[in-house]
Amino acid sequence: MISEFNNRKVLVTGGLGFIGSNLALRLVRAGARVTIVDSEVAGCGANRYNLAPAKGDLRVIAADVGDNTSLAGEIRGCSVVFNLAGEISHIHSMRDPARDAALNAMSQLRFLEECARQEPGIRVVYASTRQIYGVPRYLPVDERHPIQPVDFNGIHKYAATSYHLLWSDLGRIDARVLCLTNVYGPRLALWLSGQGFLANFLRRGLLQQTIEIFGDGRQLRDPIYVDDAVDAFLLAGAAAAPQSRLWNVGGQQTLSLADIAAFVSAAAGAPPPVCRPFPAEHKGIDIGSYCSDSTRIREELGWHPRIAFGEGVRRSLDYFQREFPHYLSKDDAALVPEPGPVGAP
Amino acid sequence: MISEFNNRKVLVTGGLGFIGSNLALRLVRAGARVTIVDSEVAGCGANRYNLAPAKGDLRVIAADVGDNTSLAGEIRGCSVVFNLAGEISHIHSMRDPARDAALNAMSQLRFLEECARQEPGIRVVYASTRQIYGVPRYLPVDERHPIQPVDFNGIHKYAATSYHLLWSDLGRIDARVLCLTNVYGPRLALWLSGQGFLANFLRRGLLQQTIEIFGDGRQLRDPIYVDDAVDAFLLAGAAAAPQSRLWNVGGQQTLSLADIAAFVSAAAGAPPPVCRPFPAEHKGIDIGSYCSDSTRIREELGWHPRIAFGEGVRRSLDYFQREFPHYLSKDDAALVPEPGPVGAP
Repeated sequence: MISEFNNRKVLVTGGLGFIGSNLALRLVRAGARVTIVDSEVAGCGANRYNLAPAKGDLRVIAADVGDNTSLAGEIRGCSVVFNLAGEISHIHSMRDPARDAALNAMSQLRFLEECARQEPGIRVVYASTRQIYGVPRYLPVDERHPIQPVDFNGIHKYAATSYHLLWSDLGRIDARVLCLTNVYGPRLALWLSGQGFLANFLRRGLLQQTIEIFGDGRQLRDPIYVDDAVDAFLLAGAAAAPQSRLWNVGGQQTLSLADIAAFVSAAAGAPPPVCRPFPAEHKGIDIGSYCSDSTRIREELGWHPRIAFGEGVRRSLDYFQREFPHYLSKDDAALVPEPGPVGAP
Repeated sequence: MISEFNNRKVLVTGGLGFIGSNLALRLVRAGARVTIVDSEVAGCGANRYNLAPAKGDLRVIAADVGDNTSLAGEIRGCSVVFNLAGEISHIHSMRDPARDAALNAMSQLRFLEECARQEPGIRVVYASTRQIYGVPRYLPVDERHPIQPVDFNGIHKYAATSYHLLWSDLGRIDARVLCLTNVYGPRLALWLSGQGFLANFLRRGLLQQTIEIFGDGRQLRDPIYVDDAVDAFLLAGAAAAPQSRLWNVGGQQTLSLADIAAFVSAAAGAPPPVCRPFPAEHKGIDIGSYCSDSTRIREELGWHPRIAFGEGVRRSLDYFQREFPHYLSKDDAALVPEPGPVGAP
């Protein structure tokens, strides 16, 4: 899998973000010629510090993926486009649906048209989300589960997912779509609000604050460590002729929010978590319990999540305890007991 | 049902179009105070002549529904918004996906936000389409059928459908969504290309041309006469607290394309139809056979399609034979044996 990308030209959209940067760093180590496209839109998690380990070994283009004029030359000759640009926050999407539509749907529509034009049949691996399924009708959720998004983010991610599948059906591109569950690990955008419960739990744990769980804590999730998610992207990008175009990707274990919170707070040395009622802003778009059926990607692409949740949390805390100043908001920075060289990214 | 709208303020978006104008005329007859909003975008079928019978009895505002500044006052105090604005052509959507996204998704997003702001909880009846289901996995297609649109029009109509359902789940509006199959009848936009096979068949029959069927003619459809579709809109708009928010609406009979073409050509006195291979532009997005399971709207709203296909075709031909000059393109007008006062709308 690693040798597959040696000396290949690859594009990573959203490559300054959490998953995108972890993926870009791995591709650089695999010998790929990596170009990153990232609009650095406020609120989407771009952080130039994410790429510190690879400085000089990749190129970064500051552009929106929907900006055709900047990207034609970058797309031509690419072996694979890893397409992770977008806004992931459900909460942000409810506050400003039009912004979410522009970032997640309209930009993707223009980008894929440009991909098909510049490099017909180009391989594109897209970061979609479990959110397209909405409230699960059964668990675990497989790829045949009905589509019924419950927030604007899910609606627009489903539109972009459909763009990928439609252009592929027409032979214009060769898309592979990953429907990811909650991803966590080093480079998560801890300084931003609305990035999901794992960013919130880790941030509060690191700040020695009490983790607050919305609801009774019994809701299930299957968090996936970022290195395992990166594996899924690489396998999807390397496969010559996969049987499917869309795969659900979940973590190794399914746990309750209460267990997840208890583990993070204990590992971080923070006070024990508490449950509190859902804030109105979250209640309307909550999906209850979720876990993925990842059978298809295991069988078709040979993917296996290798990092157990406990190990993933330890690695995440190690990273952030070392690099915390680069992942703090200005407000949070004031709370850190011994401030280092603080600068909100 | 009719008395329900007497003296009520109602808004009909897309009211210069085919179904919208038929609905607006019926509402005027029912005593409603009707305002029409229509952007008259080229290619979407707006035709001021459609409203000839009601001149003076309704107001027409030339605006895009996404233009918030024009519509605030029109939305306030409305009993029902009949929301039919949009582009229906699958073919147009494939030629210019961004245009389809702007018309069918972005404008609807802004419009519903304005509806929720100006008149919280407002009743909105939306014209969605069978196209959101894509290639049927079973027949007839009910409301539990998986969502899998196969063209950009279907993708964006599904996004707009989701906007309606999401705002309703959040209590901001009170949406009712009709997933319509192929509608035909007086005021169909015969002069436009890409309006579906029924417009094409009627136009060619009226011009005494040979109707061309794409494929072997065995594909099934359940055409719905426009008056029956209007009934569905009125029932959905009048229902106090319907059990569901989304209903499939199909015609009285399911027929093959060959039978439909044979009937239209015979009724119009045109030559017998011929089958020919799908043009590439159509093949990629063809959905094969389709027919609707309308059980839910029959049971929940008491809707029944009253016009058999033969009767609907006769009524359509009567209308167009009388009014043909108002529904012809300039090219077609030259073909009419005895030109009347011709003017492309």
